[in-house]
Amino acid sequence: MEATIIVTVLALLQFIWFSLEVGSMRVKHGIKAPAMSGHADFERRFRIQQNTMEQLVVFLPALWMHALVSNPLWGAGIGLVFIIARFIYRAAYFRDPAARGNGFTLGFVAIAVLLIWALVGAVMRML
Amino acid sequence: MEATIIVTVLALLQFIWFSLEVGSMRVKHGIKAPAMSGHADFERRFRIQQNTMEQLVVFLPALWMHALVSNPLWGAGIGLVFIIARFIYRAAYFRDPAARGNGFTLGFVAIAVLLIWALVGAVMRML
Amino acid sequence: MEATIIVTVLALLQFIWFSLEVGSMRVKHGIKAPAMSGHADFERRFRIQQNTMEQLVVFLPALWMHALVSNPLWGAGIGLVFIIARFIYRAAYFRDPAARGNGFTLGFVAIAVLLIWALVGAVMRML
Repeated sequence: MEATIIVTVLALLQFIWFSLEVGSMRVKHGIKAPAMSGHADFERRFRIQQNTMEQLVVFLPALWMHALVSNPLWGAGIGLVFIIARFIYRAAYFRDPAARGNGFTLGFVAIAVLLIWALVGAVMRML
Repeated sequence: MEATIIVTVLALLQFIWFSLEVGSMRVKHGIKAPAMSGHADFERRFRIQQNTMEQLVVFLPALWMHALVSNPLWGAGIGLVFIIARFIYRAAYFRDPAARGNGFTLGFVAIAVLLIWALVGAVMRML
Repeated sequence: MEATIIVTVLALLQFIWFSLEVGSMRVKHGIKAPAMSGHADFERRFRIQQNTMEQLVVFLPALWMHALVSNPLWGAGIGLVFIIARFIYRAAYFRDPAARGNGFTLGFVAIAVLLIWALVGAVMRML
């Protein structure tokens, strides 16, 4: 499980990074809490963070369920693809939200592979 | 744990479905990222997805902790009730947000049962 | 793992509490779903809940990974610090959002300690 732990920590550190970028934009543009809008750059950072959280809620259980039914090293490798995809998504979204498709799709495919793999592994164990 | 994995995958596939419905409404009504408002249908789909995520953050740990201290088949059954409740919530909310109470409450009760069961199981193991 | 389960249940009950406070403010100030703004108190309760969810997404995996590589009682103790920090954050934020720093920072440090501890533990096991 060591590889699963390391990839999970990396994904969470990435999410913390994205979260700190939201706070940084809040300070830079003088947007006082609880406001969640007020400057385009702040809103982009916020959406990057929120979308990453929505994906983590699926990615982390998928990664760990995969590790329970198959070789965790495969899951860790796919997990690294997910993390790279989120960096691509972040860079593209901040430059131009309309360009976010590729990074989003790559991360989504990584999650889908882990999820289906875990499901098939669990069903095969039951049979 | 196979039943726990299968129910988790089903709940996550449901969440992915609800998420894709948000994206679909974004395209349909021409709401460009990072905007999160602009059409009532889009906002409803978004709130359905967000509320489901808030519940998943509690449901998934509750389901797995229950599986650690009790028979996972009971947890899987309650998990299916949670998933059905979310479909009821989704249909009611999209038709009329004021009608979302029943689906919400059923899912909330399913989560509460898992959470209390896990807590009681853990405390009994310590004694 | 019993201590880990108990602390997890407490953190989730706290999050449910914060979530119910959002719903309570919605009713009190007549803010109809899907609206997520309309009264300062509602918006504060909502941001307290959302920020707590963002932290739970990191806290819970960190707590459990720590329990896999080290003595779970240490993790449970740090977890209680996290829960106390969130109560401090909630009280300060609702009184004055600008005063949220201390509670936020304490909870963040608790998470960081768990996360780094889990990472170091996993790396040491691999060597």
